[in-house]
Amino acid sequence: MPRKLGLLAGSGTLPGRIIGACKEAGRPLFVVAFEGQTEPETVINVDHTWVRLGAAGTAVRRLHEAGVEDLVMAGAIRRPSLAALRPDGWTARFFAKKGAAMLGDDGLLSALVAELEEVEGFNVVGPDSLLPGTLASKGVYGVIRPDEQALLDIKRGIDVALGIGALDIGQAAVVQQGLVLATEAVEGTDALLARCTALRREGPGGVLVKVKKPGQEDRADLPSIGVSTVKAAHAAGLRGIAVEAGGTLVIDREGIVNAADDAGLFVMGVTIDQEPSSPGDETG
Amino acid sequence: MPRKLGLLAGSGTLPGRIIGACKEAGRPLFVVAFEGQTEPETVINVDHTWVRLGAAGTAVRRLHEAGVEDLVMAGAIRRPSLAALRPDGWTARFFAKKGAAMLGDDGLLSALVAELEEVEGFNVVGPDSLLPGTLASKGVYGVIRPDEQALLDIKRGIDVALGIGALDIGQAAVVQQGLVLATEAVEGTDALLARCTALRREGPGGVLVKVKKPGQEDRADLPSIGVSTVKAAHAAGLRGIAVEAGGTLVIDREGIVNAADDAGLFVMGVTIDQEPSSPGDETG
Repeated sequence: MPRKLGLLAGSGTLPGRIIGACKEAGRPLFVVAFEGQTEPETVINVDHTWVRLGAAGTAVRRLHEAGVEDLVMAGAIRRPSLAALRPDGWTARFFAKKGAAMLGDDGLLSALVAELEEVEGFNVVGPDSLLPGTLASKGVYGVIRPDEQALLDIKRGIDVALGIGALDIGQAAVVQQGLVLATEAVEGTDALLARCTALRREGPGGVLVKVKKPGQEDRADLPSIGVSTVKAAHAAGLRGIAVEAGGTLVIDREGIVNAADDAGLFVMGVTIDQEPSSPGDETG
Repeated sequence: MPRKLGLLAGSGTLPGRIIGACKEAGRPLFVVAFEGQTEPETVINVDHTWVRLGAAGTAVRRLHEAGVEDLVMAGAIRRPSLAALRPDGWTARFFAKKGAAMLGDDGLLSALVAELEEVEGFNVVGPDSLLPGTLASKGVYGVIRPDEQALLDIKRGIDVALGIGALDIGQAAVVQQGLVLATEAVEGTDALLARCTALRREGPGGVLVKVKKPGQEDRADLPSIGVSTVKAAHAAGLRGIAVEAGGTLVIDREGIVNAADDAGLFVMGVTIDQEPSSPGDETG
């Protein structure tokens, strides 16, 4: 019998894919859904519980009661203010211990993973370990290839996205003909792309670049793209998407390639020299 | 007779204020207005010419013909794509000489100021030299003072705004309870604030922070705030505005203080250690 998996489910399609993979593999699963974050349809046909985001203590207790050993976080969580969080005892102690109220997203998630492993005894795994082939590979995925201008825009986008990532602001940037149209903060990539429709300049369209934050906790918050990202990029007049190979989740690669080919967009994984040896390098 | 001033006028209220100051002082003035950028009402009652942004050669020729000696750039310019610019001979040579197509906003403006001074012989001055009292001073301007949380948000906002400034992305950030709600790229501060309405969290509102880009050309593109900034910040649920003392233009300080006091917002100038000796330090 495989070890029981606990899933802390945010929004988007990633949690549902993990649920589907567990069912196919016959792996026992227990899902924690968060009020106002997880889409209700995600947990319709799976053993689950609903908790407030601030009731992390309740979530942890139920994960233990369900016999969970491995734990995965997947999907987007809209970070509330401390005022809106109304932390329970566990959460308040966690915040006090880590000084977490002063941490950015990345520091907070790293501290949370450490707490769940070291104090609560769970084995925290990344979504990519449960969905083989999801981690972005290097190279062009579909039939469209970036031209020289697009490659320059990707280069600038990588610098910009790494820069805002290092500041723990966000993981995405849109660049058109050298001009940074928009960078991501808390709004998410769909809203980022939507505003580029009004900001775009004449001539060849821009590119969306997504990279993980330098030094971030890989199991908690890898950037991701899905079919909806391709459609939103196309609607915003972009010409393509570049993601960090080995550092981004490509959710439904076949669907992404089909949508990109249909729309005339390129999608590619690029190796970024964040660490001494990045996974994409080996195939490059 | 004072030296004749040439004004390269972008959008917003700053060009009109410079025109008004010249009229009051009886200083001769010639304005270059840019199609699709300058508001037509700005130049109604002043000697002026209209040119395309890409027709910089025409602008330079007319400035010389008008006998302009000093030159000032004021107001926002929406940077077009190279494709939309349709550069005339002067502009194309300028771009070729400086490799300007590959420069960011800041590099482009620095190169332009150098060209106008060294090649064309104009004396380029900053808007603040024509509008005494416009450069942000240090301290709280109105009756509302920032509380401890707001001061922490300002500190984070300064780090973030300097970070995106160093990347030549933008000059403004909005932070609420430690969370970076939004950072500015090409959209401008009004659009930045408008999107914060939907992004704001429960509890104490955020702050807008504006700083100049590290090492930027001070005469060409200092960040600015006006009465409309205060109103937009209030509409977005913010609690205050912090600007870099000695590095930001405060356009209509009296109107800003009145609007901020009415809305219950603080407005303050903060000293930032960008250079060894910053103007604000001397009074601090």
